[in-house]
Amino acid sequence: MSGDKVRRLGAVLFPGFELLDVFGPLEMFGHLTGTVELTLVAQSRGPVASAQGPAAVAEYGFDDCPHLDLVLVPGGIGTRAAIDDAGLLAWLARRVNEAEIAMTVCTGTALFARAGLLDGRRATTNKMVFQWVTEQGPNVHWVKEARWVEDGKFVTSSGVSAGIDMALAVVARLAGEQVSETLAVAAEYDWHRDASWDPFAKIHGLV
Amino acid sequence: MSGDKVRRLGAVLFPGFELLDVFGPLEMFGHLTGTVELTLVAQSRGPVASAQGPAAVAEYGFDDCPHLDLVLVPGGIGTRAAIDDAGLLAWLARRVNEAEIAMTVCTGTALFARAGLLDGRRATTNKMVFQWVTEQGPNVHWVKEARWVEDGKFVTSSGVSAGIDMALAVVARLAGEQVSETLAVAAEYDWHRDASWDPFAKIHGLV
Repeated sequence: MSGDKVRRLGAVLFPGFELLDVFGPLEMFGHLTGTVELTLVAQSRGPVASAQGPAAVAEYGFDDCPHLDLVLVPGGIGTRAAIDDAGLLAWLARRVNEAEIAMTVCTGTALFARAGLLDGRRATTNKMVFQWVTEQGPNVHWVKEARWVEDGKFVTSSGVSAGIDMALAVVARLAGEQVSETLAVAAEYDWHRDASWDPFAKIHGLV
Repeated sequence: MSGDKVRRLGAVLFPGFELLDVFGPLEMFGHLTGTVELTLVAQSRGPVASAQGPAAVAEYGFDDCPHLDLVLVPGGIGTRAAIDDAGLLAWLARRVNEAEIAMTVCTGTALFARAGLLDGRRATTNKMVFQWVTEQGPNVHWVKEARWVEDGKFVTSSGVSAGIDMALAVVARLAGEQVSETLAVAAEYDWHRDASWDPFAKIHGLV
């Protein structure tokens, strides 16, 4: 990574977060030992139950979370409640403003949209519930067919597993494509490195 | 699922487990609401730190864990210590014996091999550290080129992301291929449904 800076990546948990939205990207970033440090953050520190049941442990609460260079927001059924959580949205807006890169996976994009962070920007989200998410951000330039979309510091991705491809794209931006290639091969992952690869837009009737 | 039986899937955690090995498969099984119930189990209940840092919460310890119909064992750097943990191996052997299906991802296969559970059976594992894993089970019929291998109740998979494909194969076995297809499309996942698909065996010099 440039200048050997250690970047802190904070994945934001809320009740009902989608497991793979968080742990797919963290699997990839987590192997950048010495250059990216992972943390989980939530309203309060401690266990947070996922949409699928199993809980992960937030190391920090919103109040005591240190500076985040990279922010990752997952989707999941919990976003339905989270979009009405003014405290969460305000915290997100502040942290995204201070961050170098702000990422969403799946319906996590609804939170950035609702907070107004994506107004005037290009973004994408889950293709199965595209309508619900896009209603949260009428001033966003929604991209129907994309695995992920980069617009400045914002990197938004399609449904669930798309977060892994997005993470590898962000790693490539920060550390070079060879590093992403090495991570993908080590994880025996069939990396979709083309952001326009998106068969699911068609399957879900968007194009 | 057959007979509407609710199956309990226990994912086994140990310090240094690989995040995606656990949460890739659980993402898929976790959407089988009402037919599969997920739980995390470890030596003692409570938080267990992953290889990447973030911790997940074991709901049960080995002593108080209820019957498991499905057992999932991840890999990760923590397997290096776990293969010498006689208590863990004995517990695994007992639970696998009682289970309907026993799954491993990546170097998790080393634990089954070391416990002698795979003797005389076909199995696969991570392709990057194939030699280390296979040394733990000299009487196993190791398959060098496979995304996953099914032999009776045992389903062993290749490195990290292969666990997702294996999980979808097991879902297909239990609930039908259409259910797996629906899960994959909902997660916008490019499912590799062919167990012989394995470009990584060649990349890692095994074939």
